[in-house]
Amino acid sequence: MVKRYSIGSVFKSESVIEDIEVSSGLADIFMLDEEKKEVSLKLLDDELVYGLGESVRGINKRGWKYLSNNVDIPIHLEQTMALYGSHNFLLLFGSGRNLGIFIDYPGYLNYDIGFSKRNELTLTFTDLDVDFYIIEEDSALGVVKRFRKLIGKSYEPPLWGLGYSQSRWSYNNEQEVLDLVKTFKENNIPVDAIYLDIDHMERFKDFTVNKQRFPDLKALSNKLKKEENIHLVPAVDACVKVEEGYDVYEEGVKNNYFCKKENGENFLAHVWPGRAHFPDVLNDRARKWFGKQFSKLLEQDVDGFWIDMNEPSIFYTEERVKEIYQKFEEIKDKDLGGGYFAEIQDMVGTVQNRPADYEMFYHETNQGKIRHDKIHNLYGYYLLRGATEHFKEIGRDDILLFGRSSHIGMHRYGGIWTGDNHSWWSHIPLIMHQLVNLNICGFLYVGCDTGGFASDCSQDLLMRWLGISLFTPLFRNHSAIYTRRQEPTAFEDNKSFSDLISLRYAFLPYIYETYKKAVNEDTLYFYPLSFIYDDERSKEVEDQLFVGQSIMITPIYKQNAKGRHVYLPEDMLLLRFRSYDDYDKEEYKAGDYYVSAKENEILVFLRKGHSLALAKPARNTSEVDFNDLKEIKF
Amino acid sequence: MVKRYSIGSVFKSESVIEDIEVSSGLADIFMLDEEKKEVSLKLLDDELVYGLGESVRGINKRGWKYLSNNVDIPIHLEQTMALYGSHNFLLLFGSGRNLGIFIDYPGYLNYDIGFSKRNELTLTFTDLDVDFYIIEEDSALGVVKRFRKLIGKSYEPPLWGLGYSQSRWSYNNEQEVLDLVKTFKENNIPVDAIYLDIDHMERFKDFTVNKQRFPDLKALSNKLKKEENIHLVPAVDACVKVEEGYDVYEEGVKNNYFCKKENGENFLAHVWPGRAHFPDVLNDRARKWFGKQFSKLLEQDVDGFWIDMNEPSIFYTEERVKEIYQKFEEIKDKDLGGGYFAEIQDMVGTVQNRPADYEMFYHETNQGKIRHDKIHNLYGYYLLRGATEHFKEIGRDDILLFGRSSHIGMHRYGGIWTGDNHSWWSHIPLIMHQLVNLNICGFLYVGCDTGGFASDCSQDLLMRWLGISLFTPLFRNHSAIYTRRQEPTAFEDNKSFSDLISLRYAFLPYIYETYKKAVNEDTLYFYPLSFIYDDERSKEVEDQLFVGQSIMITPIYKQNAKGRHVYLPEDMLLLRFRSYDDYDKEEYKAGDYYVSAKENEILVFLRKGHSLALAKPARNTSEVDFNDLKEIKF
Repeated sequence: MVKRYSIGSVFKSESVIEDIEVSSGLADIFMLDEEKKEVSLKLLDDELVYGLGESVRGINKRGWKYLSNNVDIPIHLEQTMALYGSHNFLLLFGSGRNLGIFIDYPGYLNYDIGFSKRNELTLTFTDLDVDFYIIEEDSALGVVKRFRKLIGKSYEPPLWGLGYSQSRWSYNNEQEVLDLVKTFKENNIPVDAIYLDIDHMERFKDFTVNKQRFPDLKALSNKLKKEENIHLVPAVDACVKVEEGYDVYEEGVKNNYFCKKENGENFLAHVWPGRAHFPDVLNDRARKWFGKQFSKLLEQDVDGFWIDMNEPSIFYTEERVKEIYQKFEEIKDKDLGGGYFAEIQDMVGTVQNRPADYEMFYHETNQGKIRHDKIHNLYGYYLLRGATEHFKEIGRDDILLFGRSSHIGMHRYGGIWTGDNHSWWSHIPLIMHQLVNLNICGFLYVGCDTGGFASDCSQDLLMRWLGISLFTPLFRNHSAIYTRRQEPTAFEDNKSFSDLISLRYAFLPYIYETYKKAVNEDTLYFYPLSFIYDDERSKEVEDQLFVGQSIMITPIYKQNAKGRHVYLPEDMLLLRFRSYDDYDKEEYKAGDYYVSAKENEILVFLRKGHSLALAKPARNTSEVDFNDLKEIKF
Repeated sequence: MVKRYSIGSVFKSESVIEDIEVSSGLADIFMLDEEKKEVSLKLLDDELVYGLGESVRGINKRGWKYLSNNVDIPIHLEQTMALYGSHNFLLLFGSGRNLGIFIDYPGYLNYDIGFSKRNELTLTFTDLDVDFYIIEEDSALGVVKRFRKLIGKSYEPPLWGLGYSQSRWSYNNEQEVLDLVKTFKENNIPVDAIYLDIDHMERFKDFTVNKQRFPDLKALSNKLKKEENIHLVPAVDACVKVEEGYDVYEEGVKNNYFCKKENGENFLAHVWPGRAHFPDVLNDRARKWFGKQFSKLLEQDVDGFWIDMNEPSIFYTEERVKEIYQKFEEIKDKDLGGGYFAEIQDMVGTVQNRPADYEMFYHETNQGKIRHDKIHNLYGYYLLRGATEHFKEIGRDDILLFGRSSHIGMHRYGGIWTGDNHSWWSHIPLIMHQLVNLNICGFLYVGCDTGGFASDCSQDLLMRWLGISLFTPLFRNHSAIYTRRQEPTAFEDNKSFSDLISLRYAFLPYIYETYKKAVNEDTLYFYPLSFIYDDERSKEVEDQLFVGQSIMITPIYKQNAKGRHVYLPEDMLLLRFRSYDDYDKEEYKAGDYYVSAKENEILVFLRKGHSLALAKPARNTSEVDFNDLKEIKF
């Protein structure tokens, strides 16, 4: 059962696709404090609080505070309150009630989930203009299914989007891409896609190709597709470079497609291309126009895009830099002993993604002119949506599409990757926790940068990371420009990487079916144990996940460990995979165990009465024979 | 057996107290690359590499790279290569050999411990002027004991230094301290010491007291000692404020006690007091003079000190700020579209603890004039040593003393706390790993900021943190000025905090005896399982520690967990403590278990044939009756 409650004057985010009548007043569970702009509710003892999609800490969000504020944040810590996406859905269960709360609110929103007081959940709004959807069902999964029906079917990628993909900031030119493909072939490492980061562009201009680096992207694209079944996926940024003669810039200016300041000037921010404008994707005309631009790259025969910097990320504004220059003028002749330099340090240190800059520009929406910060968290969603609306218009439903910034609603149009994680062991459990909550919020096509984006990766870390990434629908190895090379061929043990990445293709039929089912039935791809079992222990296990409802994975995420503890809520069959045809089988009774796993071993537990069908070895998804499967039963 | 090998011209760090004859050549295990200034050796398969004292990641350092460079670093991540201390000792064992390597080298030193190549350890020096001490014994513990004999007996604190202590940046005045004591009493929370952070000083001047805030520190100090048995412990920083009329500054200038630049001027850095000089503690005369200053606070009847900022930390130098100002002048009239502001961002962002600044000043040592960076890692050690040498001279062997920056050798003079950790769950296992490696390196009086220094703490985090901190010799709750209040009385469940902190006093006889034994026998206070058991599993367990050789502790370090997995290498008796007289006893056979533990429960496992003696409840260490003990046997 869904009930909708409304406070104030609500911006229609189109996150929800059903039209639910507004109930009068406010739900009984809530206490409203209009002065503080707070809505709070009591948590029950031991109640689990899931949701919030992409966020730090555990699957159970209880005990910390969060902030919905889509932000380009290069470091994800336990204390980090906001990441790239805002997913304002909470699921309360485990102590009697099964309650879903969707807060349809596009601005900044603070959560205190039993942090200040153990049994109190408080939402603090910037403005009390919000729709609440309250869902009550008989089970946690029931709540999720009802919520997912409310927000609409999740995005489905093309099959090749479920293969292994290789990325780095940046593969700089055609030769580097060809060499990469050659090295992968020589080492028998299957691959379905290669990503082009921002350096494929001409001076970071969206939808352009640097001709020195990629003289004929279309030919390269077709050669790779035809000869190797490999797809190229370029990045598209939210920011449009200010440059005379650049068609996207000129059209945008001419037709008023960019976000403007109060005074009517186009809002100017510095991002990768230097001076840039942001397309006003909350404006239907501008969104349609920006969506059309994707055809320029489709004409190069690429079939996929990843949308980056779409929070939108701001390096700095000239207004703020001028204030800093002004401050310098004020202090430069003063005694250095006076500590004035600290003011400069503070101003320079906080220049990026500065809240005040997001209050400087406006959107011309079909609901009126709105200052950006009021609907900030919708920007990434609407930008990506514009692309999909265009693909639909030109009859293309086969495009791979995902972005960094997101909001519930965007799950209908594409997937996400979880941004700039690090080559840290702790980021293996982090993605596990995020996957469950993102699935709950409708995002099924999800993955992280396998091996970690920033910081240096080691062979053991990359290999252990496969314990989760072999199963994520988006399976991409991506790393930052200044880090140690992170392709699976960059380490000592190429053979194990070949065997393990090949396993992805053996699991593909299971992965594909599981994904389809999650889309069609509005359920999960990754299940927490608490959704499948009723015992107390299953409520607290967060480092084991079910992929679908047949297999449970238990990645190892401690350096130098040779195994891990596993909790089995029922009898299960352990499959310890080293490769497609090299694996152990061991039956386990329900209970707690230490299970050994060498670095090149992947642990998969099969449930009683279930089966796992393996496809034969393949070099990419198109070679996978879905009709010739080896079935492992228990 | 110890052998010493020497390359180049070695600075005598006085880390070692024995005079070992130099063997010719270089140890067989090493490969020397003079051009790269590298010394490397082969690691054996599965060999464990312990050591490096205060550093990130696991007890086993294998698989990452480290840097010896004492640095004021406010965030401790998996990728962090250097912290506040340099402890250049490695212990290799577990695959046949038991090898200790002490690298007596006071400059920057890079370690690659099986990171680039799994079976290779590489040391990269700035200058090839180094002494190696190679120790071979029959066991890992044997190596440690021999090493500890080489470097001399560890520091012993006064008994009250083993009690619970409360700190915050900062308790600002006398009334705040008195209120704190009152609140603790009202809530039955025992406490032995209260810390005064930098705000007790007059304008951050070492050895001064702000008279507005603390009109009569001596009276306060005596009142607390006499009425409550509580000791006050003020902070002392490395930096001496430049201020006319300030005696420490004037004496230092007059007698050339401060570090100087090449041109003979006193080196000037900006730190907490603004403009400041660094006492040249590597110079015997200057060190003696600086040590004497501590008497100014001893005259206020405080009996302990914590030495901060002694890396020494540099906020910025005026030379560098002038370069930044110059850069501004150069770019301020240029087109903002040119991206010049990024140069300013980079310069401002790297102004703190800048390597080039450490190359600007010199020490006048009894081994000649030496540029600071060449002996950088000794600074904190020698500063603290100066204090102890003074205490000895005035016949005081009862002073509590610990510092932030350290080097092997300093363990003879004081303890350390592990600096600016965070209120993160992951910093519970981090301190467990650091404790073992610090013990190996001679530092026994060690603890971390319980509850975390930076970021906001929650009740559950602070309570779970007691799982380790109840047992650390230095047991201090400390937090940063801008964080949520973190005293045990700042949360909802005062009763549990009272019960649990009281347990510290019940354990005190065991803690005291264990500490004494570790000092006297050159062994460990915290033992890893790998030192006690021979099985393979015990080599990889890093989240369970022995305190002495009788009890094993297993802290819970996951939010919302209601227990944890435990590995028992032998039959053990679980004591699940809620308070001194409220605990469960459960016998366990050797094996793997999930053991439940509510938030207010502390898990202690007692070995067969051992006993744990509990003292009766006390409000501080002086009330603990060591003769009236309740013994729990197994």
